[in-house]
Amino acid sequence: MTHEEYLRLAIEESARSVEEGSSPFGAVIVRNEEILAVEHNLVVPCQDPTAHAEVTAIRAACAEIGSYDLSGAILYTSCEPCPMCLNAAKWANIKEIYYACDRDDADKIGFRDKVFYEQDVVHMHHLKVSEAVDIMQKWYQSETKKPY
Amino acid sequence: MTHEEYLRLAIEESARSVEEGSSPFGAVIVRNEEILAVEHNLVVPCQDPTAHAEVTAIRAACAEIGSYDLSGAILYTSCEPCPMCLNAAKWANIKEIYYACDRDDADKIGFRDKVFYEQDVVHMHHLKVSEAVDIMQKWYQSETKKPY
Repeated sequence: MTHEEYLRLAIEESARSVEEGSSPFGAVIVRNEEILAVEHNLVVPCQDPTAHAEVTAIRAACAEIGSYDLSGAILYTSCEPCPMCLNAAKWANIKEIYYACDRDDADKIGFRDKVFYEQDVVHMHHLKVSEAVDIMQKWYQSETKKPY
Repeated sequence: MTHEEYLRLAIEESARSVEEGSSPFGAVIVRNEEILAVEHNLVVPCQDPTAHAEVTAIRAACAEIGSYDLSGAILYTSCEPCPMCLNAAKWANIKEIYYACDRDDADKIGFRDKVFYEQDVVHMHHLKVSEAVDIMQKWYQSETKKPY
C-alpha cells in the first residue's frame, strides 16, 4: 500500500469516529507494511483528555507488539498532530508522520491545536527542591534502570 | 496544604516509582484542596510510551471526577513536564503547574525532554485529501457534537 492509501485508512477511521458520536480524528500505525493499530479519538466516550486518535493508536500499537518502542513505524493521521500527540510520537521513536487536515482546519471547527502550538496558556512555577534531584540521581545510579 | 507540600507529595511518589523499578517521576493533581490523583511514571511496567507521571495522573483524576475537564485543578510534578505532558495539561484545562526538577536535570540522567522541546526529530508530510476536511465539517455541523 502507498502512504496515501494508509492515510486514507486513517481518514476512514475519522469518519467512523463521527458516526459513533466522537470527534473527527483517526490514526493508523504501520511498521514494515504491517498495520499495528487503527484507532480514533476517544476523549468524549472515555472522558479522557489524552485519548486523541494518535495517542490511542500509539497505545494500541505498543500493546500489540509488547513494547513502548515503535522505532521504524510510521504514523498516519487524519489531522496534523497537536503538540501532545507529536511528542507522544517522539517518545515512541516514530520518525515519520503523514497527515491530511492541518491545524488551521482544526481551528476552523473549534479545536485548540493551533492555540496550543502558538500560545503559553499555562502558568509554570519552578520550586527547587533538592531531594527531587537526589531521587533522579538515585535512579540514574541504579544498575537495574531502564532508560528510554 | 501549601503548594510546596503538594509538590513534596509528587516528589515522594517519584521516589516510590524508583523503588518499584520505574522511572523517577511522580505527579499529583489537586482541585479545591482535594487531591484527585497521585501517580507515577508507568512507561516501563505498562510498555506505554505515553504513561508519563503527569499523563497517568491526568487520566486518573479525570476517571475520579468522571470528566475530561479539570478546570480549576493544579498539577504538581517532580519534574518539569515534557511537551507531551504540558499539552495534555492544556487539553485538560489545567492552568497552573508546579515542578521541582527541570528539563536540564532530566537531560543529565538521559531523558530527552529538552531535546524534544528544542529539536524537530520527526519528518512531517502533509498530503491534502479533501474528504478529510469534509468529515471535519460534517462533525462541525452536527447538532450532537461535543466540542472541548
